[in-house]
Amino acid sequence: MITAASNGRIKRLIQLNQKARLRREEDIFVVEGIRMFLEAPLEKIREVYVSERFLEQCGCRDRLEQTGYEVVSDSLFEKISDTVTPQGILCVVEQLHYNKKKLMQKETPLFLILENIQDPGNLGTMLRTGEGAGVSAVIMSRDTVDPYNPKVIRSTMGSIYRVPFWQAEDLRAETEALREQGVRVFAAHLQGSCEYTKADYSGGSAFLIGNEGNGLRPETAALADACVRIPMEGEVESLNAAVAASLLMYEARRQRGERKG
Amino acid sequence: MITAASNGRIKRLIQLNQKARLRREEDIFVVEGIRMFLEAPLEKIREVYVSERFLEQCGCRDRLEQTGYEVVSDSLFEKISDTVTPQGILCVVEQLHYNKKKLMQKETPLFLILENIQDPGNLGTMLRTGEGAGVSAVIMSRDTVDPYNPKVIRSTMGSIYRVPFWQAEDLRAETEALREQGVRVFAAHLQGSCEYTKADYSGGSAFLIGNEGNGLRPETAALADACVRIPMEGEVESLNAAVAASLLMYEARRQRGERKG
Repeated sequence: MITAASNGRIKRLIQLNQKARLRREEDIFVVEGIRMFLEAPLEKIREVYVSERFLEQCGCRDRLEQTGYEVVSDSLFEKISDTVTPQGILCVVEQLHYNKKKLMQKETPLFLILENIQDPGNLGTMLRTGEGAGVSAVIMSRDTVDPYNPKVIRSTMGSIYRVPFWQAEDLRAETEALREQGVRVFAAHLQGSCEYTKADYSGGSAFLIGNEGNGLRPETAALADACVRIPMEGEVESLNAAVAASLLMYEARRQRGERKG
Repeated sequence: MITAASNGRIKRLIQLNQKARLRREEDIFVVEGIRMFLEAPLEKIREVYVSERFLEQCGCRDRLEQTGYEVVSDSLFEKISDTVTPQGILCVVEQLHYNKKKLMQKETPLFLILENIQDPGNLGTMLRTGEGAGVSAVIMSRDTVDPYNPKVIRSTMGSIYRVPFWQAEDLRAETEALREQGVRVFAAHLQGSCEYTKADYSGGSAFLIGNEGNGLRPETAALADACVRIPMEGEVESLNAAVAASLLMYEARRQRGERKG
């Protein structure tokens, strides 16, 4: 059992929770909680840490035997946990890699393209809603908050394992590449000329969503085939970015469902 | 200038930020930041506190002269602020009261009814999107997080001043009262029999949204005319409560817009 905060593995876990760069270099991330342990693809789990208390009470011994695990004292576990009330289980999981080319060549794909999203809760919610709406992938700019940030992961409620996503080295180049493959690109824009429910998303489509405070960079919005606007009553200046993304993705889903019958 | 943390008014401000009960008893709440000061209805502003630095640099002297203000030392201001990087202005504002009866009797009204929502960010986002979608009012149960909680207020982005809302002493009784006035009540429910885009919201409508983890209480869902379901792909068990509410409110808006032409 590990009891000392000076233990090298413990120090590394804390760093992994804090530093996107370290996660990227080692191609791993940290997840917490029983659900995130049970839902993780078995072959991707590298290390598992449980608190003494968790081990006594848990109902997942079989899986723990499969993955192997390390016991950590209760008080030390609280220190490595990123949550206020830790459940007592934490895993190191390999980062997820997708076949971009294949995903980009799907028939009538639906993409969410994110530029400079800063709020971890927003990004997590977009990944979660993205899976629900059935997007082909979520593509994000390098300056978007790290998708493996612990707060993002919590907000995804497990979708982090299932919805394809990647960080684009060059977001505008990838957007252009999608357009060249016949995907229509729609920018969510406060000054959009077309209401979002009036555009046609029945073909391959992608939605561009920008930063919470500033929206899309003009040069990014300029790549779009059309700018769409979500109408707003009252004196609302904009909607929350995750809400805007959700409305667009589900409107595409609605239109596609209607066409099918 | 106030410099001492022991000052009675300072102590009270800190308490007002922390305690829903105190806010309710005194029928006031605290808002922070320049935008929230400028957008507050003038007649509702009771007290204004500014930091020394804010006062030197601000461009709103005229309004400050109208409302009156108290200067607080920069270091003390940081202590009373609920934010990590305080802007240097904070106001005590009267709580908002609406004519329920009038709002309930609107022609083809649209209500959002919330039961036991716990996350301040979710509630704030629902008030913000509610204003955007043009709801008549947001009605919430007593066990929902206090709408005057500082985190809720921040997430509303000013909608707190503009979208009518109230906490119902008896949420189910108010829901029944709406039904008696001809409003159709739709419960957002994972087991709903009807897809949310297939129901008809063109008449007076209300959406019931439940707790983030547990959804609606069965006895509350039972009050609804229909249970509607947001379809989900993949293995998503549910959507974020604010996202679900947003999809429903904007679907009603879409349908109503189409009818108008």
